[in-house]
Amino acid sequence: MQAYANMTKEQLLEEEAKLRQVYQEYQGKGLQLDMSRGKPSPEQLDLAMELLNALDTETVMKAENGLDVRNYGGLDGIPEAKRLMADMMDVKPEQVIVCGNSSLNTMYDMVARGMLKGFLGETPWCKLDKVKFLCPVPGYDRHFAVTEHFGVEMINVPMTEDGPDMDMVEELVSKDDAIKGMWCVPKYSNPQGVVYSDETVRRLAAMKPAAKDFRIFWDNAYAVHHLYGEENGKLLNILEECEKAGNPDMVFEFASTSKVSFAGGGISGIAASEANLADIKKSLTIQTIGSDKINQLRHVKFFKDGKGVAAHMERHASLLRPRFELVLETLDRELSGLGAGKWISPKGGYFITFEAMEGCATRIVALAKEAGVVMTPAGAPFPYGKDPKDSVIRIAPSYPSLEELKEAANVFVTCVKLATVEKLLEK
Amino acid sequence: MQAYANMTKEQLLEEEAKLRQVYQEYQGKGLQLDMSRGKPSPEQLDLAMELLNALDTETVMKAENGLDVRNYGGLDGIPEAKRLMADMMDVKPEQVIVCGNSSLNTMYDMVARGMLKGFLGETPWCKLDKVKFLCPVPGYDRHFAVTEHFGVEMINVPMTEDGPDMDMVEELVSKDDAIKGMWCVPKYSNPQGVVYSDETVRRLAAMKPAAKDFRIFWDNAYAVHHLYGEENGKLLNILEECEKAGNPDMVFEFASTSKVSFAGGGISGIAASEANLADIKKSLTIQTIGSDKINQLRHVKFFKDGKGVAAHMERHASLLRPRFELVLETLDRELSGLGAGKWISPKGGYFITFEAMEGCATRIVALAKEAGVVMTPAGAPFPYGKDPKDSVIRIAPSYPSLEELKEAANVFVTCVKLATVEKLLEK
Repeated sequence: MQAYANMTKEQLLEEEAKLRQVYQEYQGKGLQLDMSRGKPSPEQLDLAMELLNALDTETVMKAENGLDVRNYGGLDGIPEAKRLMADMMDVKPEQVIVCGNSSLNTMYDMVARGMLKGFLGETPWCKLDKVKFLCPVPGYDRHFAVTEHFGVEMINVPMTEDGPDMDMVEELVSKDDAIKGMWCVPKYSNPQGVVYSDETVRRLAAMKPAAKDFRIFWDNAYAVHHLYGEENGKLLNILEECEKAGNPDMVFEFASTSKVSFAGGGISGIAASEANLADIKKSLTIQTIGSDKINQLRHVKFFKDGKGVAAHMERHASLLRPRFELVLETLDRELSGLGAGKWISPKGGYFITFEAMEGCATRIVALAKEAGVVMTPAGAPFPYGKDPKDSVIRIAPSYPSLEELKEAANVFVTCVKLATVEKLLEK
Repeated sequence: MQAYANMTKEQLLEEEAKLRQVYQEYQGKGLQLDMSRGKPSPEQLDLAMELLNALDTETVMKAENGLDVRNYGGLDGIPEAKRLMADMMDVKPEQVIVCGNSSLNTMYDMVARGMLKGFLGETPWCKLDKVKFLCPVPGYDRHFAVTEHFGVEMINVPMTEDGPDMDMVEELVSKDDAIKGMWCVPKYSNPQGVVYSDETVRRLAAMKPAAKDFRIFWDNAYAVHHLYGEENGKLLNILEECEKAGNPDMVFEFASTSKVSFAGGGISGIAASEANLADIKKSLTIQTIGSDKINQLRHVKFFKDGKGVAAHMERHASLLRPRFELVLETLDRELSGLGAGKWISPKGGYFITFEAMEGCATRIVALAKEAGVVMTPAGAPFPYGKDPKDSVIRIAPSYPSLEELKEAANVFVTCVKLATVEKLLEK
C-alpha cells in the first residue's frame, strides 16, 4: 500500500471521500461496541465457576496452621494462601501478606501509608512540600489517578521495548530526593505488553536514590497472564535483585487473582522485605482485622498451587489469544505500509497499544465513539490524562465477543485512516 | 454477705488467707482459659455454614441491576446488598455504600480520608496543627487505636446509662473547632452494653459543633445483636435525626455482618447523607474497584433480608444468652454485697463490664493471668490504654464453652475478691 505521507493532495482527498463513505456506513449501523475495558469476558469468568463449590458445609474450615478461617485472626493471611500468592509472584511465602479483593486498594493503601505514616521511620510524605513519582508512559491510568489524588507530582519517563528509559530513571532518582516512588507494571505492561528486560530489572534494583524512602511500586498485575506460554514472560525476581544490590527495602510488589478467578472477587497480595513487612503490619493491625480468609481458603482449594494457576491461565489464554490475533490481523491487513500508526504484538496481558500519527489519537477515539465503538479515552495512559503527542490509544480486546470485536476492529482502522488523512490534509 | 469495707483488719487478713488458698488451688490446675476476646464461638459460626452453599455453579451470577458480580463494576455495592445492609442499620438503601470484610477497615478509611483529603471541601486534617476526637469511655480499644495511629488527641467523655455525658459533649464540641470527630457505639456499647437513649441521640444530632467538618463516627456494630429481643435495643435513626436537626452531613454510620455470618468473612457498610456519599465515592473510585460483589450476593441469597438476619440472630442469642447469664450469675452469687465491684447486665452485644474498686483492675487481670485465665488488659477500653481509676475490666463471654466459662468466672471472682482485700489491707 502507498503510505499516506507520500500521497498528493488529490490522492488524499479521494481517499478521504472513500473513507468517509465507509465510515458513514458504520455510523448507520447503530453499533454499540466497547474496546475500552480491560475486563475478562463472561466466558473467562465461567472458567472459575467451580470456585463457588470449593467450600461447602462439609469443609473443615481450618487453615493448615489450625486457624478457624471463619473467625477473627490471621492478619497477614493463612499460610496456604501466602504460598499461592508467592507462587504467582515467584517470591517466598514468608515475603507475602495476603490482602483483599483489590490489588488497586492494596497499592492505594501503600501510597496512603507513605503519605500518613512514612516508611521505616522516615518523614510522612504529607509533611513534605513536594513529593514526586516517576511514571513510565504509557502506563496504567489508575496508578496515576492514585498519585494525582494524593497531590503527588508525576514525571513522565518514556517506555522502551525493555522497560522504562533507565538512563533517565537513574539520573532523576539519584539527584532528586523529592522523588519517592515509581510505578511499574513489569510484565506485559499496561498498555504496551512490554516485559522488563533482565538488565532493566537489575538497573532498577541497583539504583542509588537520593531519597532513603524511595520505593518501586512493582505491580505484577499480569504475572501469570501469558498468551503464548510463560517463556515469553520471563521476569527477574525484583525482591531478590534488590537484596543482592543492597537495596532490600526499595520495592513493594503487588499481584492479585482478579483476572485469574473473578474480577473483584479474588484475593491479592503484597510482597516485600522483612523490614517492610514488619513496618506494614504495624499499621495493618490498626487498620483491619485482616482480609477475608474464607475466600483465601476457597482459592487455595480451587487452584491448589502455582501449577494449578498456570493450567487455569492456559484456559484463559485460549479465549484471549483469538481476540488479540483478530485485532492484530486487522491492524496488519488494513494499516501496514500506510504510515498511519504503529503497534506492538504483546505476548501476554490485556492490551494492545496503538500509536497513531502525532496529534491523531483524540480524533480517532472521537470518530470511533460517533460510530458506536467506545475506546479508552486518548491520553488515559498518561499522568493527568495528557498524552504530549496525542498519539497513544489503548485497545482492550478481552471483553467483546469475537464477532463484536471483528466489527469494532474494522471501525477502528477506518477511524485511524480517516483521522490520519484529515491530519495530512490540514498541513 | 458482709462488705469488705466494713471488715476489721483481722477479718480481712483471715479472708485473704482463705482466698489465697482457693486461688492457689486454681493455680495448681494449670488452666488455659480466655475471656478476653469478643469473638463468636465455633458453634455460632456453624450457624452460617449454609452460606457457603448459597452460590454454586448453577447460580445466575447477576445482580438485580444486571451487573455480573464476577466482573469489575459496582463501586458502591449491588442493590440487593445495599438493601440488606440498610435493613440492618435501619436506614434507606440509597444511603448505603456496601464495603469490604471489615467495618474496622471502613472506619479507618474514613478517618484516613479526613486526614488526607478532608470532608466536603474542608481542610485535610493532616494539614492542621491539632485534631481531637471525643472518646466516650469505657469504649472500644480498636477505635482509639485508629485515632492514636493518626496522632489525633483523644478526650475522654464518661459514659452514663443513657450514653455519653451529653452536657460535656455539647460544651466541648461547641467551643473547640479542633474537635473533628467522636466515636460512638450507640447500641449495646462496647464494653458496657449501653443503648443510647432517644434524648442522647437527639442531643447528638442537634449539636452545633465549632468545626464545620465535625463528624460522629456511629459504629452500629451490634445493630442486630440482641440477647433478649429487639425491644431492648431500640435506637433512634441518627441519620434521620441529624437531617431533622439541620445537620444532615454530621454522621457516618457503620455496620457489618462480622458477628452475623463470619468474622472477617462478611460484608460491611457505611451509611451517610447524599452529600457525604458523593464525597466518599469521589475518593473511593480512586482507591478501589469496589468490594467483593460475589460475597455480597452470597449474603443476600443466604439472609434474604432484615427478617432473615433477625431470625439468624435469634439463633446466635440462644448460644450467647447462657454464657452471659452464667457470668452474671457468678458475679451476683459471689460478689453481691461485698462492695468489691459493680457490673451491668447488658441486653445485647458482646461484653460485660466489671467495675472493680478503684486501683484494683490491673491487679485482678494479673492475678487471673497467673491462674491461667486471660482477660482483656486493664485500661484497654480507654484511650492510650489508660484507665484513670484503674477499675474497668471488659469480660468477653462469647468464645469459651459453658464449661470453660464456669471455671473462668469462678477464677475471676476469686481474683476480684483477693485484689480487693489486698487493696483494703494496704490502706
